[in-house]
Amino acid sequence: MSIQKPISVAKVGGMYFGGKEITVSGQAPEDVPLPGGGTQTITRNGDFCFGQMYAQYVLLAEPKARYPMLLWHGGGLNGSNWEDTPDGRPGWQWFFLNQGHSVYVSDAAERGRATWPRFPDIMPGYPEFRDKGRAWTWFRIGPSYTTDPAGRVAYPESKFPAAGFDILAKQTNPRWRQSEAMVEQAYAEYLGHFPQGCVITGHSQGGHFAVRALTRFPETVKALVLLEPYFQKNTLEHLDVAALRGVPQIIIWGDYLDSDQAWVNQRNTTQRYADTLNAAGCDITVLDLPALGIKGNSHMLHNDVNSDQIAGMAQRWMSERGLMR
Amino acid sequence: MSIQKPISVAKVGGMYFGGKEITVSGQAPEDVPLPGGGTQTITRNGDFCFGQMYAQYVLLAEPKARYPMLLWHGGGLNGSNWEDTPDGRPGWQWFFLNQGHSVYVSDAAERGRATWPRFPDIMPGYPEFRDKGRAWTWFRIGPSYTTDPAGRVAYPESKFPAAGFDILAKQTNPRWRQSEAMVEQAYAEYLGHFPQGCVITGHSQGGHFAVRALTRFPETVKALVLLEPYFQKNTLEHLDVAALRGVPQIIIWGDYLDSDQAWVNQRNTTQRYADTLNAAGCDITVLDLPALGIKGNSHMLHNDVNSDQIAGMAQRWMSERGLMR
Repeated sequence: MSIQKPISVAKVGGMYFGGKEITVSGQAPEDVPLPGGGTQTITRNGDFCFGQMYAQYVLLAEPKARYPMLLWHGGGLNGSNWEDTPDGRPGWQWFFLNQGHSVYVSDAAERGRATWPRFPDIMPGYPEFRDKGRAWTWFRIGPSYTTDPAGRVAYPESKFPAAGFDILAKQTNPRWRQSEAMVEQAYAEYLGHFPQGCVITGHSQGGHFAVRALTRFPETVKALVLLEPYFQKNTLEHLDVAALRGVPQIIIWGDYLDSDQAWVNQRNTTQRYADTLNAAGCDITVLDLPALGIKGNSHMLHNDVNSDQIAGMAQRWMSERGLMR
Repeated sequence: MSIQKPISVAKVGGMYFGGKEITVSGQAPEDVPLPGGGTQTITRNGDFCFGQMYAQYVLLAEPKARYPMLLWHGGGLNGSNWEDTPDGRPGWQWFFLNQGHSVYVSDAAERGRATWPRFPDIMPGYPEFRDKGRAWTWFRIGPSYTTDPAGRVAYPESKFPAAGFDILAKQTNPRWRQSEAMVEQAYAEYLGHFPQGCVITGHSQGGHFAVRALTRFPETVKALVLLEPYFQKNTLEHLDVAALRGVPQIIIWGDYLDSDQAWVNQRNTTQRYADTLNAAGCDITVLDLPALGIKGNSHMLHNDVNSDQIAGMAQRWMSERGLMR
């Protein structure tokens, strides 16, 4: 499965979707203190857009896939997470382009090139900045983190490219906890760009939004590839099981889930989702990589050193489901 | 000059450059008030990266250009401004790919996929959010703006696609006024990726950073295309004129500069720059589009309805300078 041959590309570009207009008026200029002393004058009035999202696209001249593939990043990240891996290998964007998919890499509302609005007046609440130590343990790279890279402990069989961890940290993108409805609405408007259908690959929080999108637009979403989806409280609301029967889904889990009860809970929740849908005649595949003998994957399956192997499993599954021409 | 034929692409991806590590410690959690009532707890401690920049790349299998082209966006924007134009036409990224350049589209530090750090503690100072009315007049689309699109007044011959103005507003990216040195440092590290040389196309503030980059790395930067460069106070410091003799530059200006003395001053400053360098044997071309009979261009030359015409002028100039194979 070489990924080094040139590809024939019909178009490259980037677009915006969704968003709202807001007018702020009647606010007096405010002098805010600067850390080193002195003040900076902030002017708040005017018209602004917020809540829009962004997608870059690479369209193949002769795609082999029936539908374009949409890559939806996880929370606290942006679309760059699908490009070069933290250790500089080709990412899933390039992998699937090579397999014959036209690929869209999006930035959810408020993240990356979607840009972000002033807070807390336009965007309610304050953004969360994930620190590197939290990323190290939450992403299940290892049990303990230190500022000094030499002191960081990875799991013995960890497949995350630890030397590239600081690059992953550079991709880390502030996000809001209060913005779920806004982000989901922009994704809904994004899907309007694909009347002929699309396949969504969603990682973590992106998996939540992908299932929400499928629930709302089962005629548009032709398949889901879910990498450790992080279901939020409304993910499973209003599931119209009958409408989902024709939409195959694959859910892939890495290793070390037992390191944090929150991950165990997530796996259990998605398993109930899969079982419920399969019992109703849907086609949901769950891959537990360690059970298949593939040990050591972190939450960042598509960044891990065996990212191509996992992409290949998703690719094979798509071929078997008739999603390639 | 068709831009519709497929191109043969060797690689697509995205990378990060530069940035610094910072450790925040000893800060107590802070309960900050939310607009609708209640509070949100902010935790500040941990290790973070900041000041990095991002670039996506599309590498041609057989480039006709001698060097890759780097597109550097203006202030208050990000790299998406080089992709689809606000009215949905192919942007300069696609134009130059079609002309045979491998193209890198970057997001300066603190913008777009480069992501942004917490402020004012990690990033000193507060970001600026450009409102739509300011963009309308400052970008010289027209003399007056209203929230209602029907009430906005464009210049009679304006070439900005006014119906796409709200898309341009969606691209608008907060930026800091205090971060110039940080942004410049990341650009310097980015240039380290091009030991074989590159051509930089810089718009507005991106033109400032492009000239700074040329000043620091005259062996790496093989040519500059400057779209209405906005020189900042240190742009013209430490010009080693002798080192710049082999590096051709073209500076392009649109219409309506007289609408704001700041634009007149910028044109005069860049004209002095060009005159000084040309008197010392450099090769600096200045195109005043209205003087050439091309009326109505805004500050957003590469977004205007004649964006391909202007790109074609830059392309012809590069051909004449021997920058194509």
